[in-house]
Amino acid sequence: MKDKRSAPPLDPNLTAPCVILDKPQLADNIGSVARVMANFGLQELRLVAPRDGWPQDRAWATSSGANWPLDEARVFDTVADAVADLKTVYATTARPRETQLPILTPRQAAADAYGWAGQHLKTGLLFGAERAGLETSDIALTQAIVTIPVDPHFQSLNLAQAVNIVLYEWRLQVMDAPNPTFTQNMDGPADLDLVHGLYGHLEDELEKSGFFFPPEKKESMVRNLRVALGRAHFTAQEVRTFRGVVTALTRGRGRVLAKLAGKDED
Amino acid sequence: MKDKRSAPPLDPNLTAPCVILDKPQLADNIGSVARVMANFGLQELRLVAPRDGWPQDRAWATSSGANWPLDEARVFDTVADAVADLKTVYATTARPRETQLPILTPRQAAADAYGWAGQHLKTGLLFGAERAGLETSDIALTQAIVTIPVDPHFQSLNLAQAVNIVLYEWRLQVMDAPNPTFTQNMDGPADLDLVHGLYGHLEDELEKSGFFFPPEKKESMVRNLRVALGRAHFTAQEVRTFRGVVTALTRGRGRVLAKLAGKDED
Repeated sequence: MKDKRSAPPLDPNLTAPCVILDKPQLADNIGSVARVMANFGLQELRLVAPRDGWPQDRAWATSSGANWPLDEARVFDTVADAVADLKTVYATTARPRETQLPILTPRQAAADAYGWAGQHLKTGLLFGAERAGLETSDIALTQAIVTIPVDPHFQSLNLAQAVNIVLYEWRLQVMDAPNPTFTQNMDGPADLDLVHGLYGHLEDELEKSGFFFPPEKKESMVRNLRVALGRAHFTAQEVRTFRGVVTALTRGRGRVLAKLAGKDED
Repeated sequence: MKDKRSAPPLDPNLTAPCVILDKPQLADNIGSVARVMANFGLQELRLVAPRDGWPQDRAWATSSGANWPLDEARVFDTVADAVADLKTVYATTARPRETQLPILTPRQAAADAYGWAGQHLKTGLLFGAERAGLETSDIALTQAIVTIPVDPHFQSLNLAQAVNIVLYEWRLQVMDAPNPTFTQNMDGPADLDLVHGLYGHLEDELEKSGFFFPPEKKESMVRNLRVALGRAHFTAQEVRTFRGVVTALTRGRGRVLAKLAGKDED
């Protein structure tokens, strides 16, 4: 484990949401939530009436070193208490109840929360208990419902997995709203004249080997080889490598062919 | 638990990806992965050399009733075996190695996989072991790397959580995308075991030719060749063509090498 064990510095430009777990049952899940929070850069965890009390060692055991959300977790008696200082709260539930609240995808909710965060307005991401979910009266304290698009055939999403999805979308917002991009570690493709040099080298050697048979098919055979190799978008280094491959494969062959040709003349 | 306990019907318009876990250590994680698969509508699970053998009761205990991916899970000895019948494979890793494979976000990978699925071309989503991740030689058998945008401060993402993110993005594709209609005039790519056969053929011949020098660099040289060729997505016909290319280029060489070897002994 190379991960650091202390909280990263807060981004001064953002007031990140807190994560609120309502009546969580399993300490393992609380620990898994802490780990996910660390993965996606959130720090503040609030617990509403955890079933088995707090603190619980199992939570630290399952957080894989993401201790800081647990160390600083605050416990509340009710959802109302836990959201008291927040500006808006998103309630994640698999089965939206009859309500006049907007129903958002995780992506929409993250974008919305990101907007608030940029204005230094504190929001909360609320998740219900493992089996029971959120009570309707608690949902009524929130400003939006978030629904994760699970297959209707099997909706039972693990608590930490639900948090994972919503926080992943948050992270995408932070990285590069709306679409993150990664620095590519690939070299760019080679200039095509280099690639064509490889084609010519390969085709010359294949010509010598009698590969292009019958001769009237050579043109289409060459074309097919080029198309197939062209799709690989070789880098300049790879072009050099494959020229080395052709050379290696044909090493010594000239002498054999000469000898065979000589034998034919015998 | 109101969830049904049997697999939902397959969508006849899509050939969904399979999920491949390489050397999974904890049965709990395998069960959690099965649950996530059910949440997001995937069914086919493949296990490469699970550390504690297979089947393991703990997996069923943690799947919350998502039994069908576990019941039908297939076990393989190697990643190469597990991907043999697939057309393309996406390797999820937190720390992309130096390689010439494209690096995709989960969203980009899901969109790409969805395109293949609509053409009824089978793909695989490959995940490494809990701590160790994927071996570089196994990554070289894949066609793209998927990286989940975790906070660099805490990158240790739970295996099931990693699967969760990628499958969530897959589910969004299935839900949001219009029914894919492709009018490809290309043949589909070859099954990967055919491609691996080409790799083996080429590497054997290069070995004989002394291409792999110095010997300690052979492993990385092989990897680089595979990555470069893998990006081309050769069709079955093209694999046959390139096996012919290798054969043609090496024709007669054995005799020359034997003769040269004989001369050396003089």
